[in-house]
Formats: sequence, C-alpha cells, structure tokens
Amino acid sequence: MPKIGIIMGSDSDLGVMQEAGKVLQDFGVDFEYKICSAHRLPYETERYASTASERGLQAIIAGAGGAAHLPGVIAAYTIIPVIGVPIKTNTLSGIDSLYSIVQMPRGIPVATVAINGAANAALLALQIMALQEHALQQKLLDFRADMAHEVMLKNKKLNEIGAKDYLEK
Amino acid sequence: MPKIGIIMGSDSDLGVMQEAGKVLQDFGVDFEYKICSAHRLPYETERYASTASERGLQAIIAGAGGAAHLPGVIAAYTIIPVIGVPIKTNTLSGIDSLYSIVQMPRGIPVATVAINGAANAALLALQIMALQEHALQQKLLDFRADMAHEVMLKNKKLNEIGAKDYLEK
Amino acid sequence: MPKIGIIMGSDSDLGVMQEAGKVLQDFGVDFEYKICSAHRLPYETERYASTASERGLQAIIAGAGGAAHLPGVIAAYTIIPVIGVPIKTNTLSGIDSLYSIVQMPRGIPVATVAINGAANAALLALQIMALQEHALQQKLLDFRADMAHEVMLKNKKLNEIGAKDYLEK
Amino acid sequence: MPKIGIIMGSDSDLGVMQEAGKVLQDFGVDFEYKICSAHRLPYETERYASTASERGLQAIIAGAGGAAHLPGVIAAYTIIPVIGVPIKTNTLSGIDSLYSIVQMPRGIPVATVAINGAANAALLALQIMALQEHALQQKLLDFRADMAHEVMLKNKKLNEIGAKDYLEK
Amino acid sequence: MPKIGIIMGSDSDLGVMQEAGKVLQDFGVDFEYKICSAHRLPYETERYASTASERGLQAIIAGAGGAAHLPGVIAAYTIIPVIGVPIKTNTLSGIDSLYSIVQMPRGIPVATVAINGAANAALLALQIMALQEHALQQKLLDFRADMAHEVMLKNKKLNEIGAKDYLEK
Amino acid sequence: MPKIGIIMGSDSDLGVMQEAGKVLQDFGVDFEYKICSAHRLPYETERYASTASERGLQAIIAGAGGAAHLPGVIAAYTIIPVIGVPIKTNTLSGIDSLYSIVQMPRGIPVATVAINGAANAALLALQIMALQEHALQQKLLDFRADMAHEVMLKNKKLNEIGAKDYLEK
Amino acid sequence: MPKIGIIMGSDSDLGVMQEAGKVLQDFGVDFEYKICSAHRLPYETERYASTASERGLQAIIAGAGGAAHLPGVIAAYTIIPVIGVPIKTNTLSGIDSLYSIVQMPRGIPVATVAINGAANAALLALQIMALQEHALQQKLLDFRADMAHEVMLKNKKLNEIGAKDYLEK
Amino acid sequence: MPKIGIIMGSDSDLGVMQEAGKVLQDFGVDFEYKICSAHRLPYETERYASTASERGLQAIIAGAGGAAHLPGVIAAYTIIPVIGVPIKTNTLSGIDSLYSIVQMPRGIPVATVAINGAANAALLALQIMALQEHALQQKLLDFRADMAHEVMLKNKKLNEIGAKDYLEK
Repeated sequence: MPKIGIIMGSDSDLGVMQEAGKVLQDFGVDFEYKICSAHRLPYETERYASTASERGLQAIIAGAGGAAHLPGVIAAYTIIPVIGVPIKTNTLSGIDSLYSIVQMPRGIPVATVAINGAANAALLALQIMALQEHALQQKLLDFRADMAHEVMLKNKKLNEIGAKDYLEK
Repeated sequence: MPKIGIIMGSDSDLGVMQEAGKVLQDFGVDFEYKICSAHRLPYETERYASTASERGLQAIIAGAGGAAHLPGVIAAYTIIPVIGVPIKTNTLSGIDSLYSIVQMPRGIPVATVAINGAANAALLALQIMALQEHALQQKLLDFRADMAHEVMLKNKKLNEIGAKDYLEK
Repeated sequence: MPKIGIIMGSDSDLGVMQEAGKVLQDFGVDFEYKICSAHRLPYETERYASTASERGLQAIIAGAGGAAHLPGVIAAYTIIPVIGVPIKTNTLSGIDSLYSIVQMPRGIPVATVAINGAANAALLALQIMALQEHALQQKLLDFRADMAHEVMLKNKKLNEIGAKDYLEK
Repeated sequence: MPKIGIIMGSDSDLGVMQEAGKVLQDFGVDFEYKICSAHRLPYETERYASTASERGLQAIIAGAGGAAHLPGVIAAYTIIPVIGVPIKTNTLSGIDSLYSIVQMPRGIPVATVAINGAANAALLALQIMALQEHALQQKLLDFRADMAHEVMLKNKKLNEIGAKDYLEK
Repeated sequence: MPKIGIIMGSDSDLGVMQEAGKVLQDFGVDFEYKICSAHRLPYETERYASTASERGLQAIIAGAGGAAHLPGVIAAYTIIPVIGVPIKTNTLSGIDSLYSIVQMPRGIPVATVAINGAANAALLALQIMALQEHALQQKLLDFRADMAHEVMLKNKKLNEIGAKDYLEK
Repeated sequence: MPKIGIIMGSDSDLGVMQEAGKVLQDFGVDFEYKICSAHRLPYETERYASTASERGLQAIIAGAGGAAHLPGVIAAYTIIPVIGVPIKTNTLSGIDSLYSIVQMPRGIPVATVAINGAANAALLALQIMALQEHALQQKLLDFRADMAHEVMLKNKKLNEIGAKDYLEK
Repeated sequence: MPKIGIIMGSDSDLGVMQEAGKVLQDFGVDFEYKICSAHRLPYETERYASTASERGLQAIIAGAGGAAHLPGVIAAYTIIPVIGVPIKTNTLSGIDSLYSIVQMPRGIPVATVAINGAANAALLALQIMALQEHALQQKLLDFRADMAHEVMLKNKKLNEIGAKDYLEK
Repeated sequence: MPKIGIIMGSDSDLGVMQEAGKVLQDFGVDFEYKICSAHRLPYETERYASTASERGLQAIIAGAGGAAHLPGVIAAYTIIPVIGVPIKTNTLSGIDSLYSIVQMPRGIPVATVAINGAANAALLALQIMALQEHALQQKLLDFRADMAHEVMLKNKKLNEIGAKDYLEK
C-alpha cells in the first residue's frame, strides 16, 4: 500500500517528478504515481485528494508548471501534508510555477520546495514520516553521512589531481 | 436573473471587484456577487461553476490574489468564458496573482485582464454579451464616445488654464 | 466568411499563432490570418480593426511580442472581443509581451492568455461563440471529455509500465 | 515540553512570526520562540538545530528576511522537518527571502510557505503532527469547516446588504 | 509655434510630464501639452502624430503608464524623434510601462528615458535641437556647469557642517 | 568624416552593434566603430566623448552589457545625443544592461532602445539627423513604405499558400 | 588623514551613506564624505579616484542609485578596493542600482553589498584594513561578540515576557 | 602556504570558480580549492571558516548557486574578507544566487561580485592584498595597462579590416 502519492499536472512533468520516486525507492518507501490535472481532470483530482487520508497516504508530492494550481487544489481537499514542486517552464523558467504554488492564502498551506526540486520533496516526505518511523530516521542520517562523505571524497580528489584534471575527467 | 457572476477569493477583494459591478450596473446588466474560495470552499466553488451555464450566466468574472487559483479552477468546471482579475498583493504587488491566472495550460483558457482591472473585466464581459445583444453594442459605442469626449474636454481645459493650474485644481 | 481573425505583428509569430488556427479548424470554424503590424502598417491595422464588426468577425486573436501593442491598438478600434497572445521573446522571454498586452488602461480591455498560448486563445474565442451557437457548446464539452480521457489513458499506461518505461517510450 | 520551535533571524521578524504562535496556541500545541541568527549567533543556532530532535521537537518553523539563510542552515543540522517563512523586506519585498529559502540544493529540503505566511507554517506543522495525533486531525477538520462557514456567512451578509454597504461596514 | 509636443496617455500623468515642460520653459523653447490616449482617442492621436512634422515639431515627448502604447503608436505615424517616458504605476512600479515603451520592434524606434524621467526627456529633446541651434548648445553647457557647480557647493557645505547637520537642515 | 559614432564596451558586442552600421550604410551616412570600454579604457573613452562634438559627430550610439556604464559615462562628457543599446547578457538576459542604461539620473539623458536594438538605434540617429537633412527625411519615408510593402507582400503570400506552406518554406 | 572615502552620487543618498560613517566613527577610523557624481561631475570624480591611493585611502565606499555608475567608474581609476552600495530607488526599489553595480565586467571588480547596506560596506572596509591593523581585528571580534550578546539578551527578554508583551514594548 | 581560499558549494561550480584560481596563479599568489557545502558539510565548513585567519588566509572567495548560503555562513565564522560569487543556475539564471549572497543583514558583510564573476573575485582579493604588498600593486597596474592595450589593439584591427572581417575571423 503506497504511503506517498507523487502526482503531476501533465505527463510532461514525469521526467522531473520521477526523481522523487527514485529517492523513495532508495529508502524503501512505497509510493504511487498519478497524473492528476487540476484543470483537465478536476473531479478525479478532487476524489484523489479527498480520499488520500483514508487510503493511508502520509503525504502527497504534487508537481505542476505555469499556473500551477494542482498542489493548492489538492491541499484544499485533504489535511495530510502536501508538498509542491514548481516545474520549470519554457517561458518564465518556473517563476510562474513557484509563485502559483508558494503564495497560498492563509488556511491552506503547501510545503514548497525548489523549482524542479522533486528529490527534495521526497526527502521532506521522508523526514515527515521519520517522526513516527525510527528506521527511517537512521536511513536519513545515513543518507546525510553519505552526502558528506561524497563531498569529502571529491575534495580529496580535487586536492590530489587539481582543478584542471578534475574538470577534464 | 443574473447574466454575469462576479466572484472573488476573499471579501478583502470586494473593494476592487465592485468596480466590475458598478460598470455592469451602469450598463443595466444583471449580475451577482459571490465569495467563492477555491481553497476554503472548494465544493461550493465547484458547484457554482458547474451550474453556471444552466443558471443562465454568460460569463464569470473571477478575482483572486497570491496563488490565485480561483479563475482557473472555475474555468475547469464550465465552458462559459471566465475572466480573471489578478488582485494586487502586499508582498509581490500582484505579479504572483497575474502569473497564477494568466499562465493557464493548454485546454482551459482564462481571459486575463490587468492587475486590479475589474472594470475592464466587466467591459470585456459586456463586449462578449454584445455579440448577441445589439442594444449593448450601442451602449458600448456610446461609452467609448464618452471616454473620447472626456479626454477632449480635459485637453480643452489644459490648453485654457495651463498645466500648473490644471494640477492645482 | 471568417468568424475569427487571427492576426500577428510579424510573420515570425506565425509558428505560434497557427496553433490557434489548428484549433479553430478542428472545431470547423472559419477564420483568417493577417499580418497586421501596429507599427509598420498602422493604417491597414486601423482599417482591419474598425471594419471587423461589419465584416462579421466575432473575435480577434492578436499575437505580438516585445513592446506588443497590436492587441491593444486593435481593441481601441472595435468593440468585438480582442484576445491577446503574448509571444515569447529572445531577450525577456515574453514578460515584455505579457505586460504590454495585459496591463491595458481602464476602458479598453484585452483578454490576455498565457505567453505563446495561441491554442487557448482559440478555445476562448470558441467559448465566446458557443454562447450563441449550441452546436459549439457540445463540441467544447466533447473536447474537454477527450482531454480528460487522454489523461486517464496516460495514467493507465503509467501504472502498467511504470515511470522508467513511460519516459523511454 | 515544546513540540514546535518558532525561530527567527531577528526580533524585527517577531510581529510576523507570532502569527504562527497564535495558531499553535489555538490548537493547544506547546511551542517555543527563539531568536536564532544564522549569521550573528552561528554556534547557538547550530546547537539549537542539532539538539532539536532529542529535545522532542517535531518541526522547526524558521522565519528570515533578505539573504535568509536561517531555515537552510537549521535544516543542515537536523532531520526533523524545517518550515521556512520568507519575511517581507523593505527593498525587495521578500523575493530575496523567498529565493534564499526555497531554492535549497538537493539533499537538504526546506518546506517553504508564502512570504510572511507564518500562520500557514503553523498549520503545516500541525498537519505533520496530525499524522500521529488523531485529536489534531479532528481539530484541523474543524478549523477547515469553520473557515468554510465563515465564508458562507460573509456571502450571506453580502447578498443581504450588497457590496456598497458591505464595504462601508 | 511649439517646437516640442509633450503628450501623455492620461491627465493623471501630467504631474510627471510637466517636469518636461518646466525644463523647456527654462530653456526658452516653445512646446505644447496634449492628452492623447492611444486607446481612448486613437484617431486624434494618429492625426496628431501624422501632422507633427508639417506643424514644425522637432520632437515628441510621450509619457504613458501600464500597457504604454502611446510612444510607439505615435512613432509609427511620424519620422521626427519620439521620446518615451515610462510612467510609474501603482501595481508594477513602471516596469510594465518601461517594457511597453523600450522593447520596440525593428523599424520604429522610441528613445526611452528613465521611469518618470520627464525632465531628461526634455533635455534629450534640447540636445537634439541643439545640433542645429547653436544658442541651445551654449545653454546646455551652462546647464551642465550649473549642475556641477551645485554639487560642488553641496560638497563645500557637507565638509563644513558635517553629515549630521547637513541631514537635519 | 563620420557623422555617427558606433561604440561598444567590448568586441563581443560587435555582432549586435554592426546592425547599426549596416543601417547607416544603407542610408549612405558615414560612421565609425570604436571599442571604448568605460572601465578598461576610461581616459580614451572620456577623450572620445569630450571631442565628439568638435569632430562633427551628430550622435553617438553606445552598446554595452551587464553593468553597462558606457552610454551614461559618454553622455556625461558631451551634449550631442547619446543613444544606448543594452546588450543581451548570458546571465540576466540584458535586464541588467537595460536598467544600467535607461535609469539615468536627472540631468544626463541617454536615449535607450530595446535590448540588442542596434538597428533601431541607427534609425533613431537618422531621424535626428533628418531634422536638418531633407534628403534623409525622404529616405526614411521610403524605408517605412518599404517595410509596409514587405508586410503586405507577406500577407499576400500567406493568403495564397496558407500558414502550413508558409512556415515550411 | 582619512583612510576611507565615503562617496555618493547625490546628497539625497547621504541619509543612507552616513550609516557607513557612523560605523567607522565607532571603530575610530578616519574617513571623508564626498558627493561625487559620475555624470554631473565626471572630471572631479576621475581625479578623486585616480589620486585615492596616493592620498592614503585604503578603500572607497561608493553609494549610488538607479543607473548607478559611480562605483564602477571609480573602480576604473584606482586599484584600491571599491565597495559599492546600491541605493534603494523610488521606482525599481534598488534592483536597478544593484544590477548597475554588481554586474561589472571582467577586469574591474566592485565589492557589492546589500541594497542600502552602507553599514556593512563600512564593516567590510574595516575587515580589509584589519588584515594589517591588529587592533582593528580585536575591535571587530568585540563587535561580533556584542552582536551575539545583544541577541541573547533579546532572547532572554522574549522568554521572560512573551511575544505579546515584547511586541508592545 | 595558501593566502586565498577558493571554496564552492558543489564540484559543479568548479568550472566557474577555477577562473579565480587562474587569475591568482597568473599573479603568483598561493591559494587552495575546497568544496565546502554549507548544507551537506556544515561542521567542516564551520571549521574551515573559523580557522581561516590563523591559517594565514587573507580572503575567502566563496561561490554558490540557488539558495546560496555558503558565503554568508562562512562570513559568520571569520572576520577576514569574504568575497561571494553567485553561480548561474538552470532555473533562475543566478538571480536566486545573487539575492542569497548580496542581501546580507547588518553586521556580517559579503563582498559580492557579478554572477559567475569568479575572475573579478580574484582581482578583488588581489586588490585587498595589494594594500600591504607593493609588488602586487605594480602587477595590478600592469594588468590594467595590458587590458587597455588589448582593447587598443582590437580597435586598431577593427579599423583596419572593418566589422565584417573582424567578425568572421
């Protein structure tokens, strides 16, 4: 049974949103993908959101671009945390998506991450779940230690071979 | 029976949106006001939009600020024209509202006017209605002639008394 | 006899604007294209707009980029609805076009759609015409049902083959 | 023992951030305030974040303006969810704060809300806590019902007395 | 007979535009004011521009705000230099005006000055006229010398009384 | 003897600025190119500007990108008209160049054209020169007639072969 | 003999720039004020910069607004560090000033601080001077300790009297 | 022993930041590279900054992109000058990086250079060091003379072969 829903306004957002899926998979957390347009499929979208809690979802990660209403519309139908991912757009680079998602009115929050920040959306969902699941806490600490270790290895390599060789390899 | 619905995301938008009402009143066209938050009152909002056509509405003028989803959400539930009015905001001056309203994805258009442009939203609704109602065409032409006349009177006054006196009076 | 005029400031806008033509063609609505620069062909442009109503046009879709005056200038000479399409520009990505089109002063509205949103401009014109033509209403409802159906098919495929295969195909 | 930490970069942010405190108080959730500058008090800030989990905090709400590093710096030292509130600034209206908070690099998420959106930050924290505390779920549903009810009452009043009187009272 | 036309889209721009008039007056150059809306008075505006040259105008200074089409529209009907003054707006601070004026397409230039820069528009017109009128050249050099002298006097005062007293007086 | 100076901050701007040269060449007006960095060659730049008038220059066209000081610095040393061309930049697309050029303080105007608008800068210089040279007036009128004619030919072609063929050819 | 020059484009910038003077005064470092317009007083400005080093200046703090060329122009004439302070403007809030100062081309750096950040400009100058003057190092460390102490006192007060009383006092 | 630290938030910034290294190398000044993420390696970053002074560093050049906290975080732990390089980003072109770096609060300055301006960051560091090292002063003056000479050579070439050939070669 999926714990996290990864939804998006269009299948053209899947390339970005699957980074969230990959992170959840690495952490062994079940999730589901759904294309869920607030504008083209409004009734389905409403149903998806309003039944999310009873279906056991712990959070919904919603990506959308342009006039990106999906995260906010979803958030209006559920009280589980909704994490919004502004998708980069061809014309306004995702500023339109960002403003449409983050500037929610008082009463209905959307937890917004960076433009195209789907991986961080998944990590945020994991940090939320980890409050109750101790095994996830350890995995998150390990993930951070791995990140730190990776930077240290890069530093070692950079010191050893210098910037010129580092960039060429 | 109202021909035009003037809706808004919050009663704090009423000061701006009533300019639309005043224009419609001047043209003798029936309308209704409704506070219709896409986020705080989603089911009501859906019902309002999905029944708009059968209730005889010719257009819906929807004002909203910030992550301004109302016009787009309304547009998803009806095929009568939806006119969006981005409301000026305290923080981003209404750029957030503008992007959230105008950058709609392919399939669901919203006819967007200027930030706080509620009067023009009403005039656009009237121009749409005038395609079928010839009496409205004449009224619109008269309105334009009045506007032109008013500018000409101002020019006359400016020429007569000069810029300094014009500004002081 | 064309019902809709699709005009543009330059033939370099035709690639974007023909998306409007394609939509109208799909709906079986007659239209005409015209390159109609507000700056390079001002008298022709004025004549085009001021005779639009008597020639039977129901709406004018006007695309322009940069200091995009065409939609507003057209709107000054006619009371039929003018729909503005801000064209993406090389330097400012179309923000210049958007502001030049949407920020019209009180009295002369332009119904603005998304940057490069020519398809939505056509749909908006169709929604306006559908107020009088019942056959168009049904076609618009069918169009929306098709859009919804298409998203559902994509969801089915995504569930069946997963994100990785979906993206590769 | 506080469940939520409300921290801010400067006491000049307290006027905004106390809206978060008020919401938490209304929901009966213990919290603590702390001024915690990432730049002026870096060691204290590090210690606050790195001990947050063991002290029983469920989430940290961090407000900051300008080059708003506090939420991101905090997030680097803990794996409990960090909610960022971009504070409106005198010069750039909070766009600087927003970009500094939301555009976090891969690995360290910050759940960003609207500029000055402290109340929503608190609601988001409550939605996160409600995943484990069923009593909070009911309170959140009641809160939403109250919001909806309030809008309906406003609609009733607006219909009864009209826009003019509504605005004057 | 006026040498310079100072025109504006609305009499609300007169407060800014009269700074151009004051400069011209100081230099003893005849000018005329005209409210000349591209949208509300299009035929008059066209006539004003297309007869400007034969009436002896040397340049037209055109101020407008929002979707500021006036300078570009004027420029389409004349080959005398058109100087555009973007007027500050309530919502977008004049960025909309600036983009609408400066981003003219190839073929029809508008000489754009700063937002609300009407005084500089007049100085630019004077610099253009001075190419033929040697008396104006001397006046412009004197004007510059006066500006430099004024700064030097301010420096003298600042050195004598210090910053604190300078600011208080 | 050159009548117009075309200067630029760096030889990387030459690709854009030579469009100004081409226009002047087409009109048979003598000009000179000069790389004239306000920052890397300040004394030369000062000398170029302060001697421009006595060398017979009628206008200086100055292109620069980023913190684009060249046009304003030039304008401080001469009273002949200075036309600024903001060059598109890799990072901020030329908004930095535009603001650096157009927002000049009271006293020293720069006639700013569109980002990368070098051709219009040349046309503006020609319109300024045409106030004294009647032959240039006729050439400018011919140029405009040619532009209009070209658009009409394109319309003819578009009507004959349709949008699809037009775009493919 | 002054060690630091605090210069500004206009005496209207003095209110902001004197914050730099106050900081230097607190640290007991001699400085001088000068109004030094790159546009209105170009020769004086050049002389000021080109003689700065021999007069013993260690750094120049230059504030300017709009098309803010002063810091960059100064930097072209000297190799002592130039610190730029973008002044907030009425129209573009200082974004114009910021871009005009920070986006300097390769070869001539300007050390840019925040919009209106004159106090930080002074601190940066002190940090530069402290590399050679050990007494200044200790003063800077004390200044930082005082800042930290002040925040801790505010925290103490906030904990004792609560947010409500804190805000009211 | 390195005099300058060149640090960056990620090895993806190395391509830009090595331009700083190249400049320092050309001037014969020792430096070190370090990848030093404020978010992924916070303790290491803190240590690097807090020991910088005693290790003999004269300045730290810190590059970072997006929510670019590295320069400001470093600056909080040291009183040697910190020079921030905003790295261009894929989504917001580096405006996010710029605002995150330049808009530092009162008390902790970061000397910000242009987006991707790593070479200027190095030159600024050299100008700071040159205050004490006279040999560096001469090298900086030579560097400037070389830059000026290079521009003059380009001018010579441009005059000799013309713009067309210049661009083709």
